[in-house]
Amino acid sequence: MKLMRVTDPQIVLELIEKHFQPLTAEMTTLERAGGRVLAEPVCVGEDLPGFDRSTVDGYAVIARDSFGAQEGLPAVFEYAGEILMGRAAPAIKRGRCFLIHTGGMLPAGADAVIMLEDTETLENQVHAFRQVAPGENVIRKGEDLRRGEEALAPGTLLRAPEIGLLASLGIGEVKVYRKPVMGLLSSGDELVPYMTAALPPGKIRDSNTPSLAYLGRKYGAQVLENEILADSFPIFLGKSRDLLDKVDFLVFSGGSSVGARDFTARTMQELGDPGLLVEGISIKPGKPTLLASCSGKPVMGLPGHPVSALVIFSVFGAAILERLSGREPLRHHPAVRAILTRNLPSRSGRTDYVRVKLEHSDGGALAVPVFGRSGMLRTLTEAKGFIVIPAEKEGLVEGEEVEVFILE
Amino acid sequence: MKLMRVTDPQIVLELIEKHFQPLTAEMTTLERAGGRVLAEPVCVGEDLPGFDRSTVDGYAVIARDSFGAQEGLPAVFEYAGEILMGRAAPAIKRGRCFLIHTGGMLPAGADAVIMLEDTETLENQVHAFRQVAPGENVIRKGEDLRRGEEALAPGTLLRAPEIGLLASLGIGEVKVYRKPVMGLLSSGDELVPYMTAALPPGKIRDSNTPSLAYLGRKYGAQVLENEILADSFPIFLGKSRDLLDKVDFLVFSGGSSVGARDFTARTMQELGDPGLLVEGISIKPGKPTLLASCSGKPVMGLPGHPVSALVIFSVFGAAILERLSGREPLRHHPAVRAILTRNLPSRSGRTDYVRVKLEHSDGGALAVPVFGRSGMLRTLTEAKGFIVIPAEKEGLVEGEEVEVFILE
Repeated sequence: MKLMRVTDPQIVLELIEKHFQPLTAEMTTLERAGGRVLAEPVCVGEDLPGFDRSTVDGYAVIARDSFGAQEGLPAVFEYAGEILMGRAAPAIKRGRCFLIHTGGMLPAGADAVIMLEDTETLENQVHAFRQVAPGENVIRKGEDLRRGEEALAPGTLLRAPEIGLLASLGIGEVKVYRKPVMGLLSSGDELVPYMTAALPPGKIRDSNTPSLAYLGRKYGAQVLENEILADSFPIFLGKSRDLLDKVDFLVFSGGSSVGARDFTARTMQELGDPGLLVEGISIKPGKPTLLASCSGKPVMGLPGHPVSALVIFSVFGAAILERLSGREPLRHHPAVRAILTRNLPSRSGRTDYVRVKLEHSDGGALAVPVFGRSGMLRTLTEAKGFIVIPAEKEGLVEGEEVEVFILE
Repeated sequence: MKLMRVTDPQIVLELIEKHFQPLTAEMTTLERAGGRVLAEPVCVGEDLPGFDRSTVDGYAVIARDSFGAQEGLPAVFEYAGEILMGRAAPAIKRGRCFLIHTGGMLPAGADAVIMLEDTETLENQVHAFRQVAPGENVIRKGEDLRRGEEALAPGTLLRAPEIGLLASLGIGEVKVYRKPVMGLLSSGDELVPYMTAALPPGKIRDSNTPSLAYLGRKYGAQVLENEILADSFPIFLGKSRDLLDKVDFLVFSGGSSVGARDFTARTMQELGDPGLLVEGISIKPGKPTLLASCSGKPVMGLPGHPVSALVIFSVFGAAILERLSGREPLRHHPAVRAILTRNLPSRSGRTDYVRVKLEHSDGGALAVPVFGRSGMLRTLTEAKGFIVIPAEKEGLVEGEEVEVFILE
């Protein structure tokens, strides 16, 4: 029997980085830009803010008119009126002050704002009990961004702050990397569509298509689902070839037996050069994972077991979609810190993904391993996430602090 | 001047939990159910799996026929044929074996599978060099779920594993809590729509509507954006009343000055009982946040500063949408562990959210604080996330390990 040549999971991530590239760019509206990645820099056509603005409610003044003011010895200003929000402010003269609101436009000549709570009004006069320095309580024109500056670099992921920044600059369209189209192809003579009501003997429902489609969309792909293919090599190859033309990323699922795997591997070799990159990953669950590059497009062969398929897709499928979308690979994945509730032995040389529940104790979160065969989806629904036992370790010890990566 | 009555952030989260309820339930298809929460239990109409299945490639046998088999002393079976995937298997007789693939249906009478690598074939005989126990390499009918059992409890968040489990049970529709409709209302005489090309003096673009709409959708809401309202109490109240009828959650943004805040607070008191719950939060940035319950619907008044608005919304707005969607509040938020690169003083009695960049060092991630006034969106685009300095602490020390919560 042929031994499986397995690749270290870190190397698989590096191969993904090396063999695949962000897709072409397209223009999109700001409303649809969230979660996408900039394909070119955004430069600023104007100063931000466009005028000197107050950051507090108070009185706009010429700072040096307040110098020396203190409790018991106020600086006295002549009240010159209120600056209405959204209106151009008049110019200020020495010894005068304007009432100004947070965000209001400073009068020409004014360079600071005295906070309301440091003042008292007396008929037409304002007494200030604290001096202010030039620039105090003011955001200067161009202080956030200067005209001509690069506001956002290519490769920037557009989150809420970036959407806000673009909106404040009046930018309603941006150039982003195209959204990957992911094709899902399930195969196996035992599979029937999940909507099948009464199962014929020996048949099971295809649960991977809907769950992988959900994850693919979650990771930013548009997903093309397809009919289930019978276990026939010519049909399989023909359909894969057609589909690969229409998608940016092809995912095979089903076919966990040795025969079906060979079959998927042969198809990957025929779909385009260089073909197979990975014939197995030194990971549990998910060892019999295949990865190919077919004429520049990633093609992945997931293990048939639903749990393995989901775990593998959420690590490596996510990394592929990240790469195609132009996102930087995450160096540091967010996780929940928790205390492991029992010893977990592990074979050295293999990375283990262990499913855990999260429970709460006075000392913080507890990571409770969930056991069950990898084919059983129920064990995965009980798990909140997984912990990783690196290849160089021979296990983890009860009471150790671990990081729990949340399953989506 | 009236002092602001501030509420501890933890208390605010408890008020959200106490005052608001998950929305009504509706049926949805499995394709659209991801990220939603079950409003009723899902019970199983059949056993899962529906038949005894092999978990490996090998030979299906009656286990006791293999007893005693070992290296050099094989158990000998008569080869009875191959079990095709997706087909009902014939019954087995003593001393015989069937070739079976992973996921294949066990013949009636067989109770174990010997792995291929533990066998050799010799004409019409199969020699097994290892004994198997009953049940070995087999998933029994109903082992994952028994007919009549509760597969998923009400309140379950439908992630990929749950979608997969429902699909494997042939469930194409589920009852979930309704998706919250969130209404966004910006106000302020200084605001113009973000698409405005040339800014008149004193005006700024409304950046909060598009960025909050993005976050709202990200947290599972359907978002209704609206025109910008002028600073006029009757207009404001009238429009808010109309909008509240159409939405499940109303969010005011803009109006950071003391006057505008009073104005929003008055509106909240008039929209329905009990009215204002929170007049300020002991948090920085975002202290002047308002929260009300108006006839059972949450109404939030965000600070006008874009950075404060986004930070507050991503903590408390997210918690409100979680609650309305029926999701359990997250007790343990995923975060990146990092080493703080400088001292951070903080006032005791106030919770500080400090924006940080993440940098990489040999020892792991570094959290580098980003400074800048809270009004400046650019500082937020530089930050990968934030760290929290709890109210009881007077700061954090350089070199301390911190948790970085990622900004979306």
